Amino acid sequence: MNLKKRLRLYVITDRRFKDEVSSVREALEGGATAIQLRIKNAPTREMIEVGKKIRELTREYNALFFVNDRLDVALAVNADGVHVGQEDMPVEIVKEIAPNLIVGVSASNLREAIEAEKGGADYIGAGSVFPTKSKEDARFLGLEGLKEMIESIKIPIVAIGGINHENVGEVLKLGVDGVAVISAIIGAPDVKKATQEMKTIINEVLGE
Amino acid sequence: MNLKKRLRLYVITDRRFKDEVSSVREALEGGATAIQLRIKNAPTREMIEVGKKIRELTREYNALFFVNDRLDVALAVNADGVHVGQEDMPVEIVKEIAPNLIVGVSASNLREAIEAEKGGADYIGAGSVFPTKSKEDARFLGLEGLKEMIESIKIPIVAIGGINHENVGEVLKLGVDGVAVISAIIGAPDVKKATQEMKTIINEVLGE
Ligand code: NI
Repeated sequence: MNLKKRLRLYVITDRRFKDEVSSVREALEGGATAIQLRIKNAPTREMIEVGKKIRELTREYNALFFVNDRLDVALAVNADGVHVGQEDMPVEIVKEIAPNLIVGVSASNLREAIEAEKGGADYIGAGSVFPTKSKEDARFLGLEGLKEMIESIKIPIVAIGGINHENVGEVLKLGVDGVAVISAIIGAPDVKKATQEMKTIINEVLGE
Repeated sequence: MNLKKRLRLYVITDRRFKDEVSSVREALEGGATAIQLRIKNAPTREMIEVGKKIRELTREYNALFFVNDRLDVALAVNADGVHVGQEDMPVEIVKEIAPNLIVGVSASNLREAIEAEKGGADYIGAGSVFPTKSKEDARFLGLEGLKEMIESIKIPIVAIGGINHENVGEVLKLGVDGVAVISAIIGAPDVKKATQEMKTIINEVLGE
């Protein structure tokens, strides 16, 4: 399966909603194709312990596994890749240290996306598409900005920010390769069911 | 110069006292032989930017450069090594990912020191020797515990925790290879002078 297809439904952990391991297990059961471990302000050893469990689960379900920000943790748990924001390690340095990892870069405007692509990014996390509270630091891209990015960028684009089962259709129709979701899945009362619902819509729009 | 000699005066940054780059410059002017960059809760990119400046300064002064906890930052800035605590990445994993880095491990008792040595640590950061406030999470080792550790461990031992120019003599006489200092140097009104005073005592006890 190519990278684009494996980025279709990209679920990001958030322990403020639910602990990482159980929410990842449910999201994988529901059809998530990629998981991002995102933990802030925990000891490195705890990140590694959680990451190793998620590595096992994602292998079992043949899903991609990314670690947010922390290349050290990604290497320690044999993740498939690392996702870096504009305040994290520059993609060029990540690629020098770990040329075999898949590297995603967050971009909130076209300039950042072009720079990331030039720097060697393998995909763009484009957002925030809608206003959101789950990443306080997220800057706004909007649907117009997303459309412009899709027209200019060749690497896969995963849209992020405020995406739920109500609005995912219009986002997908713009031409993104996947959607990244936090609260609409990890914050749902039934994580597995919320993932399944989202996956059904995605497969309807993008084809099986 | 061998590792032991390069660990003699090991200065750890603390931005609560003074910004990293200017304090490191002064400590190096004063004779520090090793620097540890220790930043908590800052963006990774900021750690890398600060780390690169410290890498330049430590090269200029032929001092060792360690990064606390963050192997990713250590690799990104070409540090000489990384220092890990009991809640950080296990030394065995650090050595697998980065076999060429010097790895120090914090130990607050003999069991932790023995485990670290078996795991491949290159030196032990042994402490806290005296009560201290600069690392809130530091556990107490004491002079008796330090003595026991020196008798049992073959790799170099750097004592840490509450060491100042008043008590450094008795610590060195126990047989440690170096001392690590935060507040007595970085918290001093004149960092360079505080470093010089400490260095003079160290060289008196250990020889030039
Ligand atoms: Ni005095």
